[in-house]
Formats: sequence, C-alpha cells, structure tokens
Amino acid sequence: MTVKAGIIGATGYAGAELVRILSGHPQVQLAAVSSVSFQGKPLSAVYPAYYGLCDMVCGTQEEVVQKSDAVFAALPHGLSQPLAKECHDAGKVFIDLGADFRLERLDEYEHWYGVKAVYPDLHAEAVYGLPEFFREQIRGKKLIANPGCYTTAVPLALVPALKAGLISNDGIIADCKSGVTGAGRKMTQDTHYPELNEGMHAYKVGGHRHTPEIEQTLRRVCGEEVTVTFTPHLLPVNRGILATCYAHLTPGTTLEQLQKVYEEFYKNEFFVRVLPQGMRADIHHVRYSNFCEIELHIDPRTQMLVAVSALDNMVKGAAGQAVQNMNLSLGLPEKTGLTMFPPAF
Amino acid sequence: MTVKAGIIGATGYAGAELVRILSGHPQVQLAAVSSVSFQGKPLSAVYPAYYGLCDMVCGTQEEVVQKSDAVFAALPHGLSQPLAKECHDAGKVFIDLGADFRLERLDEYEHWYGVKAVYPDLHAEAVYGLPEFFREQIRGKKLIANPGCYTTAVPLALVPALKAGLISNDGIIADCKSGVTGAGRKMTQDTHYPELNEGMHAYKVGGHRHTPEIEQTLRRVCGEEVTVTFTPHLLPVNRGILATCYAHLTPGTTLEQLQKVYEEFYKNEFFVRVLPQGMRADIHHVRYSNFCEIELHIDPRTQMLVAVSALDNMVKGAAGQAVQNMNLSLGLPEKTGLTMFPPAF
Amino acid sequence: MTVKAGIIGATGYAGAELVRILSGHPQVQLAAVSSVSFQGKPLSAVYPAYYGLCDMVCGTQEEVVQKSDAVFAALPHGLSQPLAKECHDAGKVFIDLGADFRLERLDEYEHWYGVKAVYPDLHAEAVYGLPEFFREQIRGKKLIANPGCYTTAVPLALVPALKAGLISNDGIIADCKSGVTGAGRKMTQDTHYPELNEGMHAYKVGGHRHTPEIEQTLRRVCGEEVTVTFTPHLLPVNRGILATCYAHLTPGTTLEQLQKVYEEFYKNEFFVRVLPQGMRADIHHVRYSNFCEIELHIDPRTQMLVAVSALDNMVKGAAGQAVQNMNLSLGLPEKTGLTMFPPAF
Amino acid sequence: MTVKAGIIGATGYAGAELVRILSGHPQVQLAAVSSVSFQGKPLSAVYPAYYGLCDMVCGTQEEVVQKSDAVFAALPHGLSQPLAKECHDAGKVFIDLGADFRLERLDEYEHWYGVKAVYPDLHAEAVYGLPEFFREQIRGKKLIANPGCYTTAVPLALVPALKAGLISNDGIIADCKSGVTGAGRKMTQDTHYPELNEGMHAYKVGGHRHTPEIEQTLRRVCGEEVTVTFTPHLLPVNRGILATCYAHLTPGTTLEQLQKVYEEFYKNEFFVRVLPQGMRADIHHVRYSNFCEIELHIDPRTQMLVAVSALDNMVKGAAGQAVQNMNLSLGLPEKTGLTMFPPAF
Repeated sequence: MTVKAGIIGATGYAGAELVRILSGHPQVQLAAVSSVSFQGKPLSAVYPAYYGLCDMVCGTQEEVVQKSDAVFAALPHGLSQPLAKECHDAGKVFIDLGADFRLERLDEYEHWYGVKAVYPDLHAEAVYGLPEFFREQIRGKKLIANPGCYTTAVPLALVPALKAGLISNDGIIADCKSGVTGAGRKMTQDTHYPELNEGMHAYKVGGHRHTPEIEQTLRRVCGEEVTVTFTPHLLPVNRGILATCYAHLTPGTTLEQLQKVYEEFYKNEFFVRVLPQGMRADIHHVRYSNFCEIELHIDPRTQMLVAVSALDNMVKGAAGQAVQNMNLSLGLPEKTGLTMFPPAF
Repeated sequence: MTVKAGIIGATGYAGAELVRILSGHPQVQLAAVSSVSFQGKPLSAVYPAYYGLCDMVCGTQEEVVQKSDAVFAALPHGLSQPLAKECHDAGKVFIDLGADFRLERLDEYEHWYGVKAVYPDLHAEAVYGLPEFFREQIRGKKLIANPGCYTTAVPLALVPALKAGLISNDGIIADCKSGVTGAGRKMTQDTHYPELNEGMHAYKVGGHRHTPEIEQTLRRVCGEEVTVTFTPHLLPVNRGILATCYAHLTPGTTLEQLQKVYEEFYKNEFFVRVLPQGMRADIHHVRYSNFCEIELHIDPRTQMLVAVSALDNMVKGAAGQAVQNMNLSLGLPEKTGLTMFPPAF
Repeated sequence: MTVKAGIIGATGYAGAELVRILSGHPQVQLAAVSSVSFQGKPLSAVYPAYYGLCDMVCGTQEEVVQKSDAVFAALPHGLSQPLAKECHDAGKVFIDLGADFRLERLDEYEHWYGVKAVYPDLHAEAVYGLPEFFREQIRGKKLIANPGCYTTAVPLALVPALKAGLISNDGIIADCKSGVTGAGRKMTQDTHYPELNEGMHAYKVGGHRHTPEIEQTLRRVCGEEVTVTFTPHLLPVNRGILATCYAHLTPGTTLEQLQKVYEEFYKNEFFVRVLPQGMRADIHHVRYSNFCEIELHIDPRTQMLVAVSALDNMVKGAAGQAVQNMNLSLGLPEKTGLTMFPPAF
Repeated sequence: MTVKAGIIGATGYAGAELVRILSGHPQVQLAAVSSVSFQGKPLSAVYPAYYGLCDMVCGTQEEVVQKSDAVFAALPHGLSQPLAKECHDAGKVFIDLGADFRLERLDEYEHWYGVKAVYPDLHAEAVYGLPEFFREQIRGKKLIANPGCYTTAVPLALVPALKAGLISNDGIIADCKSGVTGAGRKMTQDTHYPELNEGMHAYKVGGHRHTPEIEQTLRRVCGEEVTVTFTPHLLPVNRGILATCYAHLTPGTTLEQLQKVYEEFYKNEFFVRVLPQGMRADIHHVRYSNFCEIELHIDPRTQMLVAVSALDNMVKGAAGQAVQNMNLSLGLPEKTGLTMFPPAF
C-alpha cells in the first residue's frame, strides 16, 4: 500500500518537519504541498537543506486535498475548520496539527482561541491524537486532532501516577522549557539570534493556550477536574521540550512503586522510555526522533513527585506524532517511518 | 583608601571572575592570588583572556593571606575553615565564596556537606552575605559567608511576598535553570561541548546542597520553618540563573498589591530591578553584571504566585556579591566597582 | 542479503555515528561492537540517546572480527594495522576510519603520524575510499581507507576545476572550519562548554595531518605535485566542515564555465549538490546527512576561485562515507541506508 | 573635564554598545540619544538590559547635535554626510561609525556604496580613525571616520609584516569570520535563531564593501596598490571577528623575525596583544573589550604567512574604537574608559 500524503502549510516548521519524516516513510508518497506565502516556489527555496531532495512546488490547499489520501494541516488556529469539513465530505484522512479540534469543550476553544467553532458535529467526531492514551479511539479514525508539544510532554510525565492514584489531582505544576522552533519560522525580535543566544525567559505565564488542553487529558484520565499551573520558557536550543512536573504524592508512595507503575504503564510503548534511576531525561537524547523519555524522583522532604519528560517538540511534539496518528488511522504498523535513532550528538 | 585584596583559589571560575571585577574596582589593588593546581604559573596561562592584563603568578595561600587586607576564598567545601581561622586571628577580612560558613545550623552543614565544623565559634560569628536582606549585620563584619547562586536568586524572588504575608510558607517550589559556569572549570562528560550543546536536563533533583541554605534565608525572614522543593537544571549557556518560583497566594492577594510590595521592598536596592508588568526577567539582560531582575505573575486559575528572577551566577551569584560584601565590610559605598552595565547582546 | 557489520571503537564519536547510520540500513544487522574503555558496558550507557535502541554490550575486537562480515574500525592511528591484517587473512571487509591506510607514500605516513607501516603489502592493496573520485577502484575491494573530514571537503570543492585545468595547482589555500565533534569524545579544556561557547580559533596552523592526504587526492587527479596551505579552525557547533578554498584561475575562466564544469562533473553524484548561483553552502543544510554542497565564486578583482563546500564531518566526513564504501565494496546500491534528509532546522 | 556625548542612531547595535561603553567612561556624560524607529521611547524599551540604568528617551538628531560636544553617528551609509556638515559648522566633534568618510577615493565610495559624496571638502578633511596606524593625524581632529570591524581586524594582522617588507603586497587573502551582531538588530531569516544556530556560511564573496577600505589602509602603509581577496563568513556567536590572513613571505623570512617585528611594532599599543608562540588568537578572549590579539604562523611548506587576529566587532570593531578616537580627538588619555577586562568565560 502506498499512501498519497499532502501537507497544507508545508513551509512552516511543522510542515517542513513532516516533509522530512514522510520522506523516510516506506509507504508514503508525498503527493502535494501548499503554502500561502510561497505558492509557486519550490519547497527547497524556503528550506535549502532539502535542495535536490524535495523541490516540489508549493500549490494551493485545494490541490493538496485533491491529490492526497491523507491530508496534514499545519495552520494558524481557525483555518483548519473548513478544510476538515472538506476532507470529511471527501472521505479523506485529515490530521490537524493546529488547535482547532483539540478541545472537547467548545466554549474553552472559543475562549482561549477567540475563534468560533463552526462545525460542532465535526468537533464531536474528532479524536485527540495522543496514541499512548487514546490509541483505540484513533485507529481507523479520519479526523484527528494532533496534540501540541507541551500537551504531549506534560501528560506523558503525569498520567501513570495520576491514573494509579499516586498523586493528587490538586496543585500540579508544570514548568516547561522549549526549544526555539516551537516559536515557528516567523521572525521576531525575541528570536533574533543575538537577543536569544545566551538568554532564557518565561513567557505567557499563567495564560498559555496549552493549559486547557493539558488539563483535558489529565481530566479524562482521572475522571475529575484538574487544574494545572503551567509556565513555558524559551530555551536557546533548536529543539526539545523539557517538562519538569510537580505533584503532591499520596501519602506512603515510594519511588520504587512509582518507577514500577510507570514501567508497567509504558511497557508496550515503543516511543516512551521510562528511564531507570540514575539516568537523566535530556532533550539532547531525543532530538530528531519520536521518543519521549521520563525520569522520576521523589523529594522526600516535601513529599512531591518530580517527573521530568523530554521530547523533540517538532517530532513527538508535532510531525512525528502526526505520522504515528496517520499510521493508526490507516491500519499501518504504528512505528512505520518513525524508528530513526536520535543522534548521539 | 586602597584595599589590598587577595584571592585564594583564583584559577577556578569564581576566582577568575573576582579578578575581572576587582580589576575595575577603583579602590582595590590585587595583591596576590593562589592556586593549588597552577602554582607558579601566571593567571593568564589559565585564562588567556587576561593575557597582558593580569599575568600575576599564582602563589600559595599563605602568601595571599600575608599580603592582603581582604581575602577572598573560592575553595571546595571544608577547606575554608582553617583559612577563616587564620584570617580571623590576623584581623583580616575573610570572604568565603564556598559553603563552609553559610548554614547556621551546624548539623545541617555537617549533614549536607559531610564535613565537620571545626570552629563553632567562627561559625557563630560569620555573617551571611546577602546584602539586600542582611545589610546591617554585614557592615564592618570580618567573616562573611557569600551565598551561592541559587540561594541568591530564589530568596530575592520570594522574600518580599513571604515577609508581607502574601504567600504561604508551605508548598514553595523553586524550579531553577543555571548556566554552565556554575559547574566550574573542571571538565566532565556532561559539560563536554557536543554533549551539552542543544541539551537540557535537571540534576540533583530533591537533593541539591543549596536547599537548606535557601530555606534558612526564608526562615529567617518569616520566622517560621520553610521547606522548599528545589530542582536545578543545566542550561547550554555560559552564565545565568533563572529561578521560577511558585507559592500559594494568601486569598485575596492581587497582582497590583504584589507588584507594589516588591517595588517598595527593593526601592533602595541598586542591584535589584523589579520589572514593571509587561517586561520579562531574562538571564540575557543581566549577564556580566551584578543586577538581579524580578518579574511577577499570578496564575488566576490556581491562585499561585509565579515569581521569576534572573541574575548572573558568576556575578550577583558569586564574585560580584562578594565584592558588594567587601564594600560593606570596609565601609566603602556598596556599589563601588559594580556599576558596569550588562551588555545589550 | 543481510550483512553482519561490526564496529571496533564503537564508543568514540565516529563509532557511535556508525551505529546510528547502520541502524537505518535495510540490509545490515549490527553483529558486534567493541570498546577498550567501556568493555562490558552497554553502548547506551555511553550514549543515552540510544537507550532502548542499542543496548548491545561492548565486547572485544576479536569478537567483532569473528562475528562480522564487514568490520569498521574507528581507532587512533597505528592500531588498525594488525586488525586489517587479521581481516585480510580472514577474507572480511575492513573499512578503516582511521588514518593508517590513507597515504600511499609510506614515508609520508611515517613522517606525519610517527608510526611505522608494518604491512607494506596491505598498504599497497588498500583503496582510498572517496567514491566520487575513486568509485571503480572501491567496488568489491576488501580493504578501504575511509578519508578524513577535511580531506573529503577540500577535494570535493577543488577537483573539478583542477581536473579541467581551470585553476593553477600552485598557491591553493584551504581555510576550513570544523564542528566540535571532530575533536572527539575525549574531554579537553578547549572543548569544555564555557570555554568554547562564543569562541573560535585556528589550530595546528601549517601542520595538520590532513594536509598530505588532501594533497595526495589533488595530485592523483591532476597528475602533478600539489602543495596546499591548510588552516583548520574550531567552531562552536556540533557538526560540520565548511571549507573555503582559494585557487588562482586560469586566465579567461568565467564563472559560467566553472559552474558548468562542476555541474557536469557531479551530475550523477547523489551526495554532491552543486548549488546554483545565489544559494549558499552552509553546514546547517547538510547536518546528519551524507550530502556535501558546493558554492562557486570568482573574485573578479583578484582572479581567484573561491569554492566553498559544506558537509557533516561525522557523516560524509566519517561514518556515512564509510557506509557508502561498504555498499560499494559489497555490491549494494551505493546510497542504501544513506538517503535520510538533513533536517531543515 | 566632562564631555557631553550624544549618539545618533542609538538603538542600533553599535549605538547601544556606545551607550554601554560611555557609561563606564569617567569623563563622559551621555547628553542625548536619537533614533528614528524608537523616537519618544526610552532606550531601555529597546534594550531591557539597560532598564533602570539608561532610560533616556530617544529624541531627534537635532537634539543630539545641540546638546553634545561629541557626536557619534551610527547610521546607514549616506546619512552621515549632512550631519557631519552640521557638526563641522557648529565646531563639534563628529565620529562617524558609518562608512561615509572612510574612503579617500570618492569614486570608490560612490561605486561601492551607490551614494554621492556631497561635501568633497569634508571628505578631504576627515581622518581615518584607526589609531594604531594613524594616531597622530587623529589627535585633535574633529571629523573622524571610524573603521569597520573587518577593516580593523585585517590590517592589524598584516600591516607590521607589510611595512617591514616581510610579505608581498600581491596575493593577500583575508578569510574572516564574524559574530552575528555584525549583521545588526534588523531581523532576517538568516539570523532567525533556528536557522543560524549550528550553521555557518560565507556571504558577499568577492564583493563585500569592506574590501576597498582594507586595501586603502594597506596601500597607505606600503605605498603601493594592494588588492585583497576577502571572504566574510557568518558565525553562530554574538560577537567577534576572527581574521585568518594569508600572504606570500619574502624569501628567507623566519618566524622569529616576524614575531619580533610584530612585537616591536605594537610594543606601545595597549589594545593590541601580539601573542607569544603557543598561544592562540580566539574571539572568546577579547569579547566585550577593546583588545585585538594576533597570532603568527609560517607554513614552511608553502612559505605563506598565516596571521590570525581576533577582536570584538562591537568594541574594537565599532564602539570601543570610536571612544578611543574620541579620547584622541579631545586630548584625553587614549585608554580612558576602555580598560575593562574581557571576561574569561
């Protein structure tokens, strides 16, 4: 089987990363790419790393939908809705790397994004594509909301403990650090090299849009409302999310117990590495790969869980997970095209 | 007045930074430097940046004590005790950049550092050199324990709120990120360029030695025991501590109130910049300077204070603060030699 | 066909990169790895990025030779000679990433490396593995000397012009810049993060061991002695060689002519991208891939060719080229396992 | 004496660096700053590192001229000419960090910059502010053309040898590497963090505007026309120029001789460090300082001089040198305000 895949918004960072990953997928043929800003130009004019490898010319969204069996969209929020409708009506797989279909509560979507949900039925139909938690719902589904980067890293670090009742669902803190590609290709003074290099700061403290999405996943897992204090930071590295998560331990919980629960929870998950005690989760170790690694600690003096997860924001946090979802949707082995090693350096 | 200053352990990073800062101090003459590893070699053989500017040959500790009015020591823990005694007996100012005299509870010192406190009287006499909180005790004092980097950044971010009763002393979390110079000049595989570059990880989770020191400062301020969950991380930048601190707000506390309390608290502090709402604390903004900047937020959904402080771990977190303490000890204007701007890029 | 491949010196950087690349080769099974320093330990204990992916335990050289059809050796110079002999006698393919068999003139080898050539017959038999120039000699050969990084980048930039007589073989200058992985895994003060970060310097000016190897390739191509002024520099990036090469143009040579000669020369070379005018060779564009890109200029005022080539020192400059050579040796399609895209960021 | 200094174009990088350096000058009072883009805003709104230290509001050029004794201009080429005229007529010192008065041959200026020289008399009057070569002409002068960064680094590396006749004035090559601040504050895709980080490339090969300026300085020194092949590269570091310069040695020249000639030439130059054999010129060693260091080599096989110089492009290559020139112009000790150590890390 060869899948014809298309990318809408191919010249953004998530789109470009999709091109790279799909190029190594043995059952995918890249059928078409689109870009509003670079229509008519070859992709390699925007990303010279791809020169000679992917010189496909950027066309329109319509061309992508028409030529593809599976459509990936990496667009600013709001813009995926009509596309999802179109793909739905045409019976195509639609994987949205944007935020339009992630939140089940439409009022939350409209509140955090300032956009109206125009197809409530489609929202109800969409499945949230975090395979480690929602695999069975994703299989065979045609409308998949691909999670964001923070919203993958934080739940992966917390869910096993939360589900096992080893931590309280109250007072959770997620202190996250992101590489710069998370801010996208668009130039800003903050990401101008001399002003970011050798710097680090927090941003959108107490107000980042990934907050309700993180809470939604935790809520689904533990069956109760969960409120999270979430602080993202910008790091002077290209790739990676490091999520340092804090939660109050249920009295009597031991590190051995925690470690066992996580290992058991993820024992069949190819893309999640629960590190043994003594190893450290590091964004360096997962770059350019679809892996997420998790390191567990207890602060014995304060009885807090400190769980640290690391993943590549562009792969497990975006394009890689989208391909994982496509595989599930189409009934392909889940790790097809995603087994590349993270480089050692 | 010209102060003859000497540095013991001058070839470590804190020592080298002292050389740089003291070179710009109008009332200091660098009298002698010592190094165990590089005895007999000029300082510029270790730090070629100083070639032609400080080619002073590294001598012995004894020579430094003998030739200096003010002795700075930047040594591994345990080794400052006999030196402090010697300086005390000789009536010299002794400023310890190590940890030997920081903890008032000797059992804590012995527990966390695995070293015996051999001169309990000296410990009792030592003053903790965080001028923004203990200025009056430092003035004229001859034995000063210079705080560590994290232990400066975290209390500066929390004390005004804690003292004003705006946050609870329970459940405080300090998630800190440090530049690599904090790990010192000694090579490790972790700080070998290709393995740190493009990486980030937590270390010593739940067990870093700065924990009791942070708690001690907070305890002194609020008059009650305080326990802190403290997680340090290593950043791929040379300099800086970014401390993201979380605490439960006293019900009813507003951001305006917090902002006012901090501005009032630090209004006469030259080295502390309480940023107005809309500005972000960034390690980039304080590099190579003695400034600490603080940014305040409330997460309205969880009623947490999020206070972010940024300083240069080698300056306000080490050598600069040591010079600030020297000035206080000797009755010089506190900011003498410390007014250099942080570079804009 | 499945090739059993083994790596001697697997815990050095070139060895570790071979592990990564071979893991993506569809016809290779990694049979054994060895390491003197880490014998008995899993590879992932040295490179945590490989945790769960390659936990193979490091054994002895003997085990590697015994279990493998194709043996890769990444060892300090001198140490490959007995191994090559052993593989030769056992009829195995031996690909040496070290320098022992690169120089055809044994006196040059002994002069530059201070090591005796103990098997002159083996030296005579070895083929120099730069496929773009010596492909036919490599096919089916069992003893292959894999070129160094600089020695791949500089000839790729110069050979087409030299062979076509468009530049003089006299007065060639190669000013090269290398990423830090070229200096290996061994810690040095120079590669300690805070001392390399934000720095750049030249090293081994006028005396780097790659000089005779560069000259040998150029000499073979143009049939005359060539002497090159070669200056390597260390860059604060993980990967990449940028080679800026200067040569006197034959009078009357135009840029159009040069561009055409290079495009023609490399038209069937998958791994060499001759960039059209207006694109720039950048180490950023070839990272983690086996590609080399070349940018051509003429300085009209001085009538010099300025040819800039960029490649990844660990891939086309080491492990990737070694796999390319293995493919040629074994009669596999040359690009098998080497088609991965360089990431766009 | 207190000099009232003003900066036109204060929000560009060179302007901002002037603010930092002048803040440490004991005889300067910053009187006014201007900016077209940020008029009416405090400087610290653009450079938050200066918050609380320099919150001066950006005014107009007219205000700066009016309030200042010494006017620094850091403007795009062409725009300094009317300002220079105005300052000239008002009897003020005018130091131009732009290119308008650097080239003595007006046709070269007009050719390379595409701008007309509107005040030929002023051009004739302007002095080229490279104090190590033209100190006596600069003293007391009121119109000073401050050199560019490359044009300081390359002549400092070559002039002693050229003047002493130890190298040929023919066939000189300058391969230069610059930190990103050289490209200014203006955002470009090339200097967007993820696209520059881990990259390096050459730019404006064979056509950079600093070429005629380098040649002019060399020509003045040796009294003959000199043509230079000059290739600039962009480095992923904030600051620094590393200039690797190649020249044909006069037969018989030895390294000892060269070393002696350079040491003698620069023996009274505070800001130039001729490194002894065995030390390496590194941009890391001169950051944030006005020093330039020079390392000398001979390639014995090709009889080429390889001279490497390193300086901070924003200090000795721009703002620091401008202050050095101001000191000379006003009769202050030349190093006033410029003695800060480069940090060791």
